[in-house]
Amino acid sequence: MEYQKIRPQDINYLISVTSEDRVYYGDQINEDYSHDEMQEYGRFMPEVVVEVMTTEEVSKIMKYAYENNIPVTPRGSGTGLCGGAVAIHGGIMISTLKMNKILEIDEENLMAKVQAGVLLMDFNKAVTEKNLFYPPDPGEKSATIGGNVMTNAGGMRAVKYGVTRDYVRGMTIVLPNGEVIETGGKVIKNSSGYSIKDIMIGSEGTLGIVTEIIVRLLPLPKKAVSLLVPFPSLDKCIETVPFILRSRSIPTAVEFMQREVIEAAEEHLGREFPDKSADAYLLLSFDGNSKEEIEEIYDEVAQLCLERGAIDVLISNTQERHESIWSTRGAFLEAIKGSTPEGLDECDVVVPKNKVADFVKFCAQLEKEFGVRIRQFGHAGDGNLHVYACKDNLPDEEWKPKVAAIMERMYEKAIELEGQVSGEHGIGHAKIGFLDESVGDVSMEIMKGIKKAFDPKNILNPGKVVKY
Amino acid sequence: MEYQKIRPQDINYLISVTSEDRVYYGDQINEDYSHDEMQEYGRFMPEVVVEVMTTEEVSKIMKYAYENNIPVTPRGSGTGLCGGAVAIHGGIMISTLKMNKILEIDEENLMAKVQAGVLLMDFNKAVTEKNLFYPPDPGEKSATIGGNVMTNAGGMRAVKYGVTRDYVRGMTIVLPNGEVIETGGKVIKNSSGYSIKDIMIGSEGTLGIVTEIIVRLLPLPKKAVSLLVPFPSLDKCIETVPFILRSRSIPTAVEFMQREVIEAAEEHLGREFPDKSADAYLLLSFDGNSKEEIEEIYDEVAQLCLERGAIDVLISNTQERHESIWSTRGAFLEAIKGSTPEGLDECDVVVPKNKVADFVKFCAQLEKEFGVRIRQFGHAGDGNLHVYACKDNLPDEEWKPKVAAIMERMYEKAIELEGQVSGEHGIGHAKIGFLDESVGDVSMEIMKGIKKAFDPKNILNPGKVVKY
Repeated sequence: MEYQKIRPQDINYLISVTSEDRVYYGDQINEDYSHDEMQEYGRFMPEVVVEVMTTEEVSKIMKYAYENNIPVTPRGSGTGLCGGAVAIHGGIMISTLKMNKILEIDEENLMAKVQAGVLLMDFNKAVTEKNLFYPPDPGEKSATIGGNVMTNAGGMRAVKYGVTRDYVRGMTIVLPNGEVIETGGKVIKNSSGYSIKDIMIGSEGTLGIVTEIIVRLLPLPKKAVSLLVPFPSLDKCIETVPFILRSRSIPTAVEFMQREVIEAAEEHLGREFPDKSADAYLLLSFDGNSKEEIEEIYDEVAQLCLERGAIDVLISNTQERHESIWSTRGAFLEAIKGSTPEGLDECDVVVPKNKVADFVKFCAQLEKEFGVRIRQFGHAGDGNLHVYACKDNLPDEEWKPKVAAIMERMYEKAIELEGQVSGEHGIGHAKIGFLDESVGDVSMEIMKGIKKAFDPKNILNPGKVVKY
Repeated sequence: MEYQKIRPQDINYLISVTSEDRVYYGDQINEDYSHDEMQEYGRFMPEVVVEVMTTEEVSKIMKYAYENNIPVTPRGSGTGLCGGAVAIHGGIMISTLKMNKILEIDEENLMAKVQAGVLLMDFNKAVTEKNLFYPPDPGEKSATIGGNVMTNAGGMRAVKYGVTRDYVRGMTIVLPNGEVIETGGKVIKNSSGYSIKDIMIGSEGTLGIVTEIIVRLLPLPKKAVSLLVPFPSLDKCIETVPFILRSRSIPTAVEFMQREVIEAAEEHLGREFPDKSADAYLLLSFDGNSKEEIEEIYDEVAQLCLERGAIDVLISNTQERHESIWSTRGAFLEAIKGSTPEGLDECDVVVPKNKVADFVKFCAQLEKEFGVRIRQFGHAGDGNLHVYACKDNLPDEEWKPKVAAIMERMYEKAIELEGQVSGEHGIGHAKIGFLDESVGDVSMEIMKGIKKAFDPKNILNPGKVVKY
């Protein structure tokens, strides 16, 4: 499809429905807008960036873009990892970053209503102050809630609390033609026709632009404890996880981490990790309403880890120690990126929980086989792994075929283990080929049909998730 | 659209891909297949009923029906309440009742894989034997899991555990053209393209026929306790609920019940309810892993109920008493139906939790205003109400306009309170008008577009959820 290039009258229109200081074009556009956190997937400048503040503004812009056949890319913080919020066909980029109001925290219904551009960290702070809890906990706290919804972000606490999808109750959506709909609401149950809300979740801004979101909250658990469990080897570490999950205690999070990644994070953060004794660690957390309730559970798990070969079990029950461990965990991605400035590629597969060890070991084999440094960490408790192939000093002609082969092999392995292409980062434009291989032509055709039902002119975030 | 009427060759084809003893036509078809649990919404005989046993059989039948333009209605136990599994255009009815195998209970991943026709009660029994727990708990235990998924059934435990959607992890689906796809799997997180699984959930058999389902399980809570709390009036009873929810203890269930409905259930079951002291009751349940953990929570709630005017708090911690109370609750629908043999109409709205009292009182006013007996019960803790207008001995010419006006007023009120048309029963063919009024034309057009993406020839369960 041929799209209309941005003309001076288009800029004027955008200014007329927003304001002059919120429309950027030509040299005014910050280079950051040309990529997300994976510059490796290419740089694409939008022709114009507009910072929206209301649903009405988004509606007017979409209506105009639809009539004029101009592609539109919605974007939150741009912290994605598969080129989802990048204007690969140019056109208008709509930034939601100024739509950052927490509209309501409803303590009676345990719901909150936010604008899409509210940052996860700001939202967490606001609900915690009211002794409430928004469980989804992706590593990237500067992501927007809208972005989290659009990728169905998962995070660390999915083991116990589920993912973003499980907390979204309603949304306001601007459709590609500019029409505005509301779907769901402050309700717990809903069987009122096809769930437009649920097809929007994880649709990466390709079906509509979500401008307001109603999410469910929980009472804030009164107590939380983390356990840091050093193991002599990665194998021993990762093989312990199924035993923990089988014990039927339900941790809030089960993360695994390796020495090398921790060291990179120490360097990145400029501070030390509280333990140096081991090659591999499990990091577990537990929450509940009383010390006794949690203690009973973690005692059992600690015992089990020691029986399976753990070197020690370090209990982190002070805020300081807790911060030190979890901030290290939170810095892994940045630390790995920092360790390979020339580039890297990423894989975010999810496999059944009892297949995590198989996949982790497979990646370690690939590292040897290809002579490419591979770093991984991830959510051992929910089967979602983040694996990074690092370019280091490899010349392009050696790196490109190797990384392509490594990715191909990883996604093949994920399918073999009955896993899925993406646990939480999404598809964007970078992973469409792997999605296609994983779900097959028939499912891809259904997805294209869904895209057409929402966006018959293919103007909203074209070239992402599905191509047609 | 003109559909092909069933011809002798069609019967022969169905027999050739299944077997002679699983294909019923003409007088062989049981009259029950002409309606669901709401005969009031009309009787429609399918032209042929076929009991399927495998995904492959369903695929062959759909391919044939698609090529020959024959409408197909999938059906589980037929316990629906809005005419969803009824062949309003004739054609083939596919019964999944013989697809009743529990294929796997995977204790490592805490997942189970079942055929769609497994009954909820059989599945509950099987997982309980393994000390596992499938939380969704709709009143109708003889419904199929497939039917539960297709209406996104909620049930009593939604307050704490959520609804069917929250437990479905994967499915095998036969599309209207006979193609078979698998979506999701034994994974906790998934951001791999549009969630076909989630648009299928609650789609009432109009987008595809689900033949196998993977659901998530939890460890079985070790302890459960119910509280039966008599109140001197319905108002006092229902007004206490927000205080309970605001207290931040999380009950598993919060149901409300009235004297008249309890009496009807006593009569229906031929046994007595353990308390006669009051006009209205709250029935609460709590679960957890230790007696102490639960006690702490329910002590607080019991105290709160007494402060808000409860007559007493009866603790049910024996299996016998528990059974007696919950079997009464489980018989409400049948008891109300039995009390008005000439007919009734039903409304299954869901409203924000803090609006339950408003809606319940509104229905009590309607009873007086129209002189029609209205009975209600429901899930006070999650905002989902089941309200029944009873025809009793009213002549048709008086009943029809009155019930139409009552339903209209109820759905209007639900919209006013920011609720939704259906909490868990769905839309079927009986509630399409109310769905339309509630979500509006733009959302209905999107839903029609989704239907077309899956079923361009409109042969699968036509005339349900959306009409075109």
